[in-house]
Amino acid sequence: MQFSADDERHMREALQLASLGQGAAEPNPMVGCVLVRQGQVIGRGYHAKYGGPHAERAALADCGSANARGATAYVTLEPCCHHGKTPPCSDALIEAQVARVVIAQQDPFGLVDGGGIAQLKAAGIEVEVGLLEAEARRLNAPYRKLLATGRPWVIAKWAMTLDGKLATHTGSSRWISNELARERVHQLRGRVDGIVVGSRTAQLDDPQLTARPAGVRTPVRIVVDGDATLAPTSKLVQTAHETPVLVAVNQDADQQRCDALRDAGCEVLVCGGDDHAARLDSLLVELGKRRMTNLLVEGGAGLLGQLLELGQIDEVLAFVAPKLIGGSGAPSPIGGLGGADMMTALQLTDVSVETLGDNVLVHGFVKPA
Amino acid sequence: MQFSADDERHMREALQLASLGQGAAEPNPMVGCVLVRQGQVIGRGYHAKYGGPHAERAALADCGSANARGATAYVTLEPCCHHGKTPPCSDALIEAQVARVVIAQQDPFGLVDGGGIAQLKAAGIEVEVGLLEAEARRLNAPYRKLLATGRPWVIAKWAMTLDGKLATHTGSSRWISNELARERVHQLRGRVDGIVVGSRTAQLDDPQLTARPAGVRTPVRIVVDGDATLAPTSKLVQTAHETPVLVAVNQDADQQRCDALRDAGCEVLVCGGDDHAARLDSLLVELGKRRMTNLLVEGGAGLLGQLLELGQIDEVLAFVAPKLIGGSGAPSPIGGLGGADMMTALQLTDVSVETLGDNVLVHGFVKPA
Repeated sequence: MQFSADDERHMREALQLASLGQGAAEPNPMVGCVLVRQGQVIGRGYHAKYGGPHAERAALADCGSANARGATAYVTLEPCCHHGKTPPCSDALIEAQVARVVIAQQDPFGLVDGGGIAQLKAAGIEVEVGLLEAEARRLNAPYRKLLATGRPWVIAKWAMTLDGKLATHTGSSRWISNELARERVHQLRGRVDGIVVGSRTAQLDDPQLTARPAGVRTPVRIVVDGDATLAPTSKLVQTAHETPVLVAVNQDADQQRCDALRDAGCEVLVCGGDDHAARLDSLLVELGKRRMTNLLVEGGAGLLGQLLELGQIDEVLAFVAPKLIGGSGAPSPIGGLGGADMMTALQLTDVSVETLGDNVLVHGFVKPA
Repeated sequence: MQFSADDERHMREALQLASLGQGAAEPNPMVGCVLVRQGQVIGRGYHAKYGGPHAERAALADCGSANARGATAYVTLEPCCHHGKTPPCSDALIEAQVARVVIAQQDPFGLVDGGGIAQLKAAGIEVEVGLLEAEARRLNAPYRKLLATGRPWVIAKWAMTLDGKLATHTGSSRWISNELARERVHQLRGRVDGIVVGSRTAQLDDPQLTARPAGVRTPVRIVVDGDATLAPTSKLVQTAHETPVLVAVNQDADQQRCDALRDAGCEVLVCGGDDHAARLDSLLVELGKRRMTNLLVEGGAGLLGQLLELGQIDEVLAFVAPKLIGGSGAPSPIGGLGGADMMTALQLTDVSVETLGDNVLVHGFVKPA
């Protein structure tokens, strides 16, 4: 299918609009819509908040539905055709008598999955699918992963020295990255569903794991803590009544310690499974059932190593600070056994590099869009 | 002292010219010279090769010495006033009757060290010192270090995965960085006096450690190999007759193995000292006596850890590849004991970041200029 440069420009704007919903739209997908008539953009909309109007209805409201007759709608995701929290968008487009709908990607969601496209076509509307599809898939990769696998999208984040250390050999890690980098992390925290750390990181760093300032979403703070060793005096436990804390423990974790964590306001989740990997995966499945779309995993090396072995790291944000600390016993970001042959290393895709003062942020994805 | 914008512009050009001698001028300093009369640049020169004409004489030859009368000479280093391989530059400037000499930095070399400035002043020439001094000091930091400490400038270079690994847990490291990064390393190799690796790196990687294509200088390949374990079948030993190989061993290294290395064409240098650190330092002192100005240390983690502990890393080039390999047993770039408190990490200065394809090169210095 051939799309014009104008088509592409309008779809790019729709994608840009879609991304404005990031952090507020989930577990729904992010969607943007641009309405164009006689070459002029007459309406813009995006799915701004879970439970709120969808992008198509927002765009129609923007221009006045009556004015959309004969227009082209550029939508980043197939319009829905089912009654969810809002009535179907396919109906709205049909009622408004748009002439053409250009769609970046079909919606893999079971209740849509081509049904929206079929309805529009049945109403005599010209429908084209696949413009900037890779970009649209990338944008909603977390939504797609949750739908396809039942597990949340995992963003692995770390800050390391230029000699590859996550901490010193004694576990000291404050501060590796600069303020600009930490600010960026707080922005990210404010749009994810959960922030995950391992028990040793919780113990060594005694972190708060909150977004400061708060973002559009308040993430659950999750500690992978098989033996329920999280200290009742830790900042996490002490603030569990204000911001949720979930402690993922093994079946055989000490009951008294689990009860103490519960009494302090933490949720204690028992994760079944015969080994670390199975238990970690059952945690991911449980978080997926809760429709958590994005998890930010902030270490340490052990937890990231397990996630790498599970094939459950999807996106990486690595902050590199121009510092040297040395130490053969100092942990580097991803532990576990690791690969034996460098040829088998996981190559990130869509890599971008950004300087934040004298820190470098390398961002990439584990799989192509 | 106040310099004009024109002064700065001319000195910047002189610094740029000076840098063209990199790799060929050492163990002399790099020097550039620009001659300006009535606002016009009339001559340019730099010290292009050890033993060849100095920058001032090259610039005077460029414009014809007779035309330099009344001109201003911008020189990045104090003109020499002694007879070395060439006659004194101070004489040449005095004979040409230049009116003013602007100097970026005084030459710390014992036979100059203010003497050039004094001679020019005694001849009635206006002399100003200190324009772009930090840049000039940075450019000749290796020359200055060798003069001040008797030890070569140490450039630590490594390539690591985004999760901070120099190799996998089995020692596999080919290839972490991409071709552009490796090309850059070869360029660097072709301008240093020695390329240094530890014995384990020599054993695991069996490297050639040559500049390909060859650069202006042929570096000696140096293996820090206390027990003289370098294999006679290694590429290094096999090519020792074509490109020099120096094996630095302990006093108690096996004599037979040392003899075999000597027979194969390697120089075997016995380094005295009670511990690793002392022996490594005596190697640096010996290389300094040979007037080696720049060493490129390419790992591994153990050797870099020892150099960090000795305070002998001066400059860092770290190539970061967007790959993940994992492994708590995989080495990160700098080993040794390392610092205990992250607050004590060595902060690099004058940091620059460059992308080479999807690799990132972070470059910095351990000390301010």
